[in-house]
Amino acid sequence: MSDEIKLSLEESHALVAEACRANGISADHARTIADTVTAAERDDCKSHGLFRVPGYVEAALTGHADPEAVPVVEHPTPGVVRVDARRGFAPLALEVGRVPLVEKARGQGIAALSIVNTLHFAAVWPEVEVLAAEDGLIAFAFVMGGSDVAPAGGTKPLYGTDPMAFAWPREGRPPLVFDQASAASSRGDIMLHARDGKPIPEGWAIDAEGRPTTDPAAGLAGAQLPFGGYKGAAVGLMVELLAGALAGGALGYEQESTDPDYGGPTVGGELMIAMDPATCAGGRGSPLDCAERLFAKILEQEGTRLPSDRRYAARRRTAVEGITVPRPLYDEIDRLRQGA
Amino acid sequence: MSDEIKLSLEESHALVAEACRANGISADHARTIADTVTAAERDDCKSHGLFRVPGYVEAALTGHADPEAVPVVEHPTPGVVRVDARRGFAPLALEVGRVPLVEKARGQGIAALSIVNTLHFAAVWPEVEVLAAEDGLIAFAFVMGGSDVAPAGGTKPLYGTDPMAFAWPREGRPPLVFDQASAASSRGDIMLHARDGKPIPEGWAIDAEGRPTTDPAAGLAGAQLPFGGYKGAAVGLMVELLAGALAGGALGYEQESTDPDYGGPTVGGELMIAMDPATCAGGRGSPLDCAERLFAKILEQEGTRLPSDRRYAARRRTAVEGITVPRPLYDEIDRLRQGA
Repeated sequence: MSDEIKLSLEESHALVAEACRANGISADHARTIADTVTAAERDDCKSHGLFRVPGYVEAALTGHADPEAVPVVEHPTPGVVRVDARRGFAPLALEVGRVPLVEKARGQGIAALSIVNTLHFAAVWPEVEVLAAEDGLIAFAFVMGGSDVAPAGGTKPLYGTDPMAFAWPREGRPPLVFDQASAASSRGDIMLHARDGKPIPEGWAIDAEGRPTTDPAAGLAGAQLPFGGYKGAAVGLMVELLAGALAGGALGYEQESTDPDYGGPTVGGELMIAMDPATCAGGRGSPLDCAERLFAKILEQEGTRLPSDRRYAARRRTAVEGITVPRPLYDEIDRLRQGA
Repeated sequence: MSDEIKLSLEESHALVAEACRANGISADHARTIADTVTAAERDDCKSHGLFRVPGYVEAALTGHADPEAVPVVEHPTPGVVRVDARRGFAPLALEVGRVPLVEKARGQGIAALSIVNTLHFAAVWPEVEVLAAEDGLIAFAFVMGGSDVAPAGGTKPLYGTDPMAFAWPREGRPPLVFDQASAASSRGDIMLHARDGKPIPEGWAIDAEGRPTTDPAAGLAGAQLPFGGYKGAAVGLMVELLAGALAGGALGYEQESTDPDYGGPTVGGELMIAMDPATCAGGRGSPLDCAERLFAKILEQEGTRLPSDRRYAARRRTAVEGITVPRPLYDEIDRLRQGA
């Protein structure tokens, strides 16, 4: 028996949606969770793919999330959309916030979407990619949640891994997109190393005594480190402020679960900013043409690539070949689908 | 004879303004250049202080800048201000753009200021600090110019040092502010090492053959490196797009001077974003109070500090003690003041 299962993207989507539905997650949440999980698998971002499905179900079953929450949209100013996710999962909150965000960015030139009171543990790049690909907007996203990363100079977990994502639209081809944790790695990558019994690279984490470690379990019990020293830590601090404090809610470290067995995400926030590129140029030349010249100049240098190239290459491959899933993970999700 | 000169902040300001005025720089440009240079000296950021004055004068005398340019303000949408600096220095363009930026951010919740066609070689943090300190806004700034930094995986200069600055307002105390090059160091810091005959740290630069170097002259002739590997390079790419391509102008690498003796900055752009923190919270708790809890939690950990602490400590000191200037630099600016 092979220890990997092959699935088409459609089969992956159905598996996720059914596993969610069988565990009390509403149809809208199940569909949008399946969208984001399948997008991660499609682009070979395993750390945010099917691996996360048991976490969604656990958050629903333990009551950390409200699996039937209906997000509420508010319009405080002409340039800002606010979505209260009411302790629901982020993908649905993003879906309902997107249309007004796009309308406001088109009308005002720049607009923000602030999502509060949500559980976000998806990849962030699909959220900015869609705004650039389908709406032609420049997009930023900042996501806060958890308390895993030491601040600059410190040794104890305080910040979340704090991803920041950015997308730039391109004509006739998919957008330039990056999505990077302010931590040296995503927490999901450390969890995958732990699952597979592999050491983590130096610089990813310190242990509970503040010593450098390559043991993923020790790193998960200690603190993750920011990327790039104090500059990466400053980016993390900015994300905490924009996605956490700006929403006026509790920060990751204030939400340590009262359930010691629960390892999933806690309630946090997200800020997106969208800009219309036509607004700033003012007839001085096309921003998109200018960017294409830069991208060409980057790729002239040997050894370079654009941040999203690997994902798009994986996307072309999985559209034909489908994805592979480790059998234990498939079996676990399949059991969830059967409500077991 | 001491090889350092003591100046009060007022004396420093007058010295800069007079040196500019004696070399054809208009009164408004001279005043705003003196403001930003003196702010850098006040906060002990020598790499953006008096050290830069000969560069402003050179840009004016060689015609790379228009020293009498009057910036033009445009209002393309309710959320965007555009300033065409008309090849003038950035401090004046920022001054005229600030009032409409603040008005738009208050009214819309979020607003952008796009400055095109400018020469920017000041520190960026004073620009975001003032929006947070005096107007209570969250502020970002992204500045593009020059072609000094290799892209991820590459070995040739392409990006500018591409600073990004961020400010968060605090009640009853100065804002939290950071300002960091997407390069591992500012170019000014390498120039100061070259002037003082000191080696640069590893990781700041590669030589013209793409080899790591600690020789500041070799690094200036080769390429600077991004901070934090590919993640810092992605931040640099984002800054190039936001401050360069978005303005629709030429990027740094497209503006190599035709004058081989000219080492100063070329025309570039800047993007600022300002947000009203009250807009996003919506009665769920004060964003500023939430941030103060985070700052207190950071400082509980031994070895930590907030990004702006050193600058504010220097500011308290120089308000009383004034600043010190190396005599050769003082003499050089004094000669410029005498029109020599």
